Amino acid sequence: MLVIGERINASNRSVGEAIAGRDGEFVANLAKAQAAAGADFIDLNAGAVKGSGHEETETIEWLVEVVQTATDRPLAIDSESPDIIEAALRRYRGDRLMINSVTAEKSRLESVGSLAARHQASLVALAMDEGGIPDTTEKRLAACEIIMTYLTQLGMAAEQVFFDPLVIPISVDTNQGLVTLKTLEQIKDRYPAAKTVMGLSNISYGLPKRQLVNRNFLIMAAYAGLDAAILDPLDAKMMSVIRAADLLTGKDTMCRGYLRAHRKGMIVD
Amino acid sequence: MLVIGERINASNRSVGEAIAGRDGEFVANLAKAQAAAGADFIDLNAGAVKGSGHEETETIEWLVEVVQTATDRPLAIDSESPDIIEAALRRYRGDRLMINSVTAEKSRLESVGSLAARHQASLVALAMDEGGIPDTTEKRLAACEIIMTYLTQLGMAAEQVFFDPLVIPISVDTNQGLVTLKTLEQIKDRYPAAKTVMGLSNISYGLPKRQLVNRNFLIMAAYAGLDAAILDPLDAKMMSVIRAADLLTGKDTMCRGYLRAHRKGMIVD
Repeated sequence: MLVIGERINASNRSVGEAIAGRDGEFVANLAKAQAAAGADFIDLNAGAVKGSGHEETETIEWLVEVVQTATDRPLAIDSESPDIIEAALRRYRGDRLMINSVTAEKSRLESVGSLAARHQASLVALAMDEGGIPDTTEKRLAACEIIMTYLTQLGMAAEQVFFDPLVIPISVDTNQGLVTLKTLEQIKDRYPAAKTVMGLSNISYGLPKRQLVNRNFLIMAAYAGLDAAILDPLDAKMMSVIRAADLLTGKDTMCRGYLRAHRKGMIVD
Repeated sequence: MLVIGERINASNRSVGEAIAGRDGEFVANLAKAQAAAGADFIDLNAGAVKGSGHEETETIEWLVEVVQTATDRPLAIDSESPDIIEAALRRYRGDRLMINSVTAEKSRLESVGSLAARHQASLVALAMDEGGIPDTTEKRLAACEIIMTYLTQLGMAAEQVFFDPLVIPISVDTNQGLVTLKTLEQIKDRYPAAKTVMGLSNISYGLPKRQLVNRNFLIMAAYAGLDAAILDPLDAKMMSVIRAADLLTGKDTMCRGYLRAHRKGMIVD
């Protein structure tokens, strides 16, 4: 499974402070640590740094520069704004970029979708429209169909689209774990060349022992066909679970990845 | 998910010694502890007590007496031998018994299958024939079909049949995790009224951090439709994972089971 490391996010307090203070060493170390722990992409979220005196476009440019110096892992730019994404693209020297995200809303497809197609970037597509996260599989799939039709017309390859089936907390509705997983299966069924991606933490909102619930949901999603997850690669238990999931779904030939991670002391129980 | 507590097994050294020495208190406490931890059935395996001077039929009779005094949970009799099972049935006063197991071998279906049908017991049916565990889903399903046809002719209800899709270690063949899970899905598809059951530990044979692999395999199997698992209910991490699996597959209305277990300190991460 592809791991998109979520730690460089300005809405996290200590990270936000480091970004506001332009502490390049802090940010570079966070990028390096995530890469060493197994992140395949480094996610950058420059938003929500209030009162820092910096514009968000300027912040994302700085982040892209700092992180590219620290690691050669490709970046994921976490923003709904075409201006921020364009600012990141101006500074980015890599050949694989992920943009996060569009929805079925026409304005976002027009702006961010076109940007992704033009730059041959991968694009996270949330299975929702302007009405928010639908509570049924059918409505989420309808949003995916609008997105896929639009992006295909732009000439984008299905391989570049990472659909996010989206998650509503199980404490709100006990059925929502299955709604997400069935949506995921249906997406893989309808668009076999497309990829799937998920953030995990919503599922456990309002419950105790959230990490346990998140990890177990990830394992089920791995079996349902999940290709990528946005998470904290410095969470060793979570990364161990991902390695076990790859092993159990036949993605780890001769168990080599699992055994190598174990020799490095990276498999924790 | 139904939990079949596997701890009272004579092939385990300390348990075997207690059984050989007719230490009723030890066995009763092991039954009570498993019930308190959430076991729905208490499995009894009287085999492999060598040199104890007791016959296996006499041992199972003793075990059934001791465990029935300790807990009112139904029993699962783990034996291929009709004599042992009949001995257990002679002493059993409960109205739900599970017998473990038959295969597609005619002699076992004739003897143990008939016994289960006559006593309206649940019956674990291993998806294999005289040739051992088949390495493909198709061959395992062929064994299930033979079993189901035979048991139906005996008048047994599908609800009483617990199919075990069987597990070959992933260290032997990386594809075997998926073979088991796909077999499980197909069984649920073909025989919707039948139940499924699995033992877990084979999957991780030869690998480090086996409990991690076992737990993650259980979570995938829960999503694939597993109804029951044979395991150690005194393993708090395993039981926590089962409660999280019930939560995520919509089986825990209003999250009540999970929250109750958490209040009792039974959810560990």
